[in-house]
Amino acid sequence: MDIERIEAAASRLQGHARVTPLLSSPFLDEIAGRRVLVKAECLQHTGSFKYRGARSAVSALPDAQRETGVIAFSSGNHAQGVALAAKQFGVSAVIIMPADAPKMKIDNTRALGAEVVLYDRATEDRDAIGTKLSDERGLTLIRPFDEPEVIAGQGTCGLEIAAQAAELGVTEAEVIVCCGGGGLTSGIALALEARAPGMRVRPAEPEGFDDVTRSLVSGQIERNTGSANGLCDAIVTPQPGNMTFPIMHRLCGPGIVVTDDEAQRAMAQAFARLKLVAEPGGAVALAAALYHGDQIDGDTVICTISGGNVDRAVFLHALAQFGEE
Amino acid sequence: MDIERIEAAASRLQGHARVTPLLSSPFLDEIAGRRVLVKAECLQHTGSFKYRGARSAVSALPDAQRETGVIAFSSGNHAQGVALAAKQFGVSAVIIMPADAPKMKIDNTRALGAEVVLYDRATEDRDAIGTKLSDERGLTLIRPFDEPEVIAGQGTCGLEIAAQAAELGVTEAEVIVCCGGGGLTSGIALALEARAPGMRVRPAEPEGFDDVTRSLVSGQIERNTGSANGLCDAIVTPQPGNMTFPIMHRLCGPGIVVTDDEAQRAMAQAFARLKLVAEPGGAVALAAALYHGDQIDGDTVICTISGGNVDRAVFLHALAQFGEE
Repeated sequence: MDIERIEAAASRLQGHARVTPLLSSPFLDEIAGRRVLVKAECLQHTGSFKYRGARSAVSALPDAQRETGVIAFSSGNHAQGVALAAKQFGVSAVIIMPADAPKMKIDNTRALGAEVVLYDRATEDRDAIGTKLSDERGLTLIRPFDEPEVIAGQGTCGLEIAAQAAELGVTEAEVIVCCGGGGLTSGIALALEARAPGMRVRPAEPEGFDDVTRSLVSGQIERNTGSANGLCDAIVTPQPGNMTFPIMHRLCGPGIVVTDDEAQRAMAQAFARLKLVAEPGGAVALAAALYHGDQIDGDTVICTISGGNVDRAVFLHALAQFGEE
Repeated sequence: MDIERIEAAASRLQGHARVTPLLSSPFLDEIAGRRVLVKAECLQHTGSFKYRGARSAVSALPDAQRETGVIAFSSGNHAQGVALAAKQFGVSAVIIMPADAPKMKIDNTRALGAEVVLYDRATEDRDAIGTKLSDERGLTLIRPFDEPEVIAGQGTCGLEIAAQAAELGVTEAEVIVCCGGGGLTSGIALALEARAPGMRVRPAEPEGFDDVTRSLVSGQIERNTGSANGLCDAIVTPQPGNMTFPIMHRLCGPGIVVTDDEAQRAMAQAFARLKLVAEPGGAVALAAALYHGDQIDGDTVICTISGGNVDRAVFLHALAQFGEE
C-alpha cells in the first residue's frame, strides 16, 4: 500500500464520490477548547465513507471478473456502498447481513438493487453462507477493510482532509478517525503520511470494542471479548485487520475510547451545531474531540463523522436525552 | 442590481462563506419522479444562507461607518448572520428579536457576541426601538432583504448552483427557493439569469404566508393577512420587498405553496436521505420538489435547504410524526 495506489483510487472515484465538506462551529471549538474541523462523511453517497472503498474496489476489478457479480458481508454501511457501486457498473451484488442490523441499512441496501441474504448471528455461519453463494455464482468477495483497493479508496478521504485543511492554513493537527476494522483509519493515515506529514491519526472506538486501542498498546492484534451488538454497530468489529493493523501500528495512535453516552452527546452536538445527522458509530471521533481533550495535543483537531445511517428511534433517543447541552 | 455586484460580493465572501455542497439521493429522486439536487445552505456558517448577505453587507460598508456598529431586526437567521459578520470585523452588533423567536436562534445570536434586544410582538413597536438605538449609537441598519448588498450576497448561492449543476451536466432545471422577503430568491434568480439562463427560479412558501406567490399572480405586492407566527418562522414575512419583488416579477414564478405537514415530511426525508437537519422554513422548497411535482417541469429540479436552525422539540415532533415514510 502506498500513496500512488490512493491517488489511483482518487482518479477512479473522480466525479463519483463526493468531496465532502470540512465543517466547523465556534460552539464546538468552545466545548473542545481548541479548533475543531469535522470531515462530514455522512454526506458521502449512501450516507457513509464506505462508498469510497467499495467503488474503488469494484472499479479496480477486471471487467470479466466484475461482470459475474460481487458479494459482501456487512452490518450495513459497506453493504450500501457495495450495492451502489455494483449498481453503477450494472453488475449484481449479494450482501450477507445479520438479521438484527439496523432496519434502515437493510432497507437501503435492498433499495439500491442488491440481493440481501439475512442470517442469524447466533445460529448461522456467515462465512459458510458466503462461500456457498460465491462458489455457485462466481461472485467476487469485496472485503470491508482487509483489501488494498478498499483501503486506497478510504484513503481518498485523507487526501481531501490534507487539501482542505491546508486551505485553512492547517498543516499540523491530530486527526481522529472512527475506527472499526481500520480501513478508513489506515487509509487516511497513509494519505496524510504523504500529503500532510504534520498530522497524526488517532483511532476512536466505543467502550467495550476497543480492540484497536489495545492492539496499538500491546503491539499485536487483540480481540474484543464481548460478542454483544453495540449501539455503535458500524464499528464493532472483532479485531483490527491483518492488513490494516501494521499500517496503524506504524502511523497511528494512541487510540481514544468513548462511552455510548458520549457518542450520543456528540450526535446531539452534530445536530445542533453542524446540522448533520451522525450515527452512533460515526460520532465517536467527534465525541473524542469534544470530551477527551485531555488526551489530545495541539490547537486544532480534525475528526471524521464517518456515517449517518441511523434508525429514527435511535436518533430520537439521543436527541431527547442529550439535546439540551 | 446586476451580476457584477454579485461577483463583487463573491470576491468579498471568498474564504469566509462556505461553498455548500449540492447533494442528492436516489430515494428522493424516486419520490419526486425526477432528479432532485439539493443546495445544502443549512451547512453555511450560522446554519443558514443568511450569513452570505450579512457578510456581504457588513463587508461593503466604509470602514468608518462599520466601526460604529450595526443593527438588525430578525427572528433569528439574519440575526446570527449579522452577529457573526460583525464579530469577524470586530464591530458591535445590536439585534432586535421578537421574544417568541426560537430559543436556539436567540441563544446563538447572543453567543456570537451580539447584544440582543427582545420585544413583544403584540405590544411593542420594533421600529421605534430600533430607531432610538440607531440614533443614540450611530448604528447602521442591515436590512434582511431589501438591501442591494444583501441580495448580492445571497446571489453568490446562485453562482455556486450554476457552477455545481454544470459540473453534473445540468444546465436546464427549475430551481425552487425557500422564500420569505425574497432576498435569496431574487439573488439566485439574478445569478442564474447571467450564469445559467436555462434555469427558472420558483419561490416556495408555506400555506397562509403565500404573499410572494399571490404577488406574482397579481403583478403587484400583496400582503399576508394573518399575523400568526407560523411553524416556518424563518420565512413568514408580511410581504415581498420593494427591491426584491420587481426582480422576482421579472425572473421568477409561479410560486409553489406547501403545507406545514409537507414541510415536516420534507424535514424527515432530509434526515433519512441526506443526513441533513432542515428547519421547517428551510424545508419548504424540498417539500415542493417532493410533493408538488405536478407543478414542476423538466427532468431535474434543484432546491435549497435554506437553513437548519430548529429547536430540538420541533425537530423531534417532525421526525416522530413523519419519520417512517
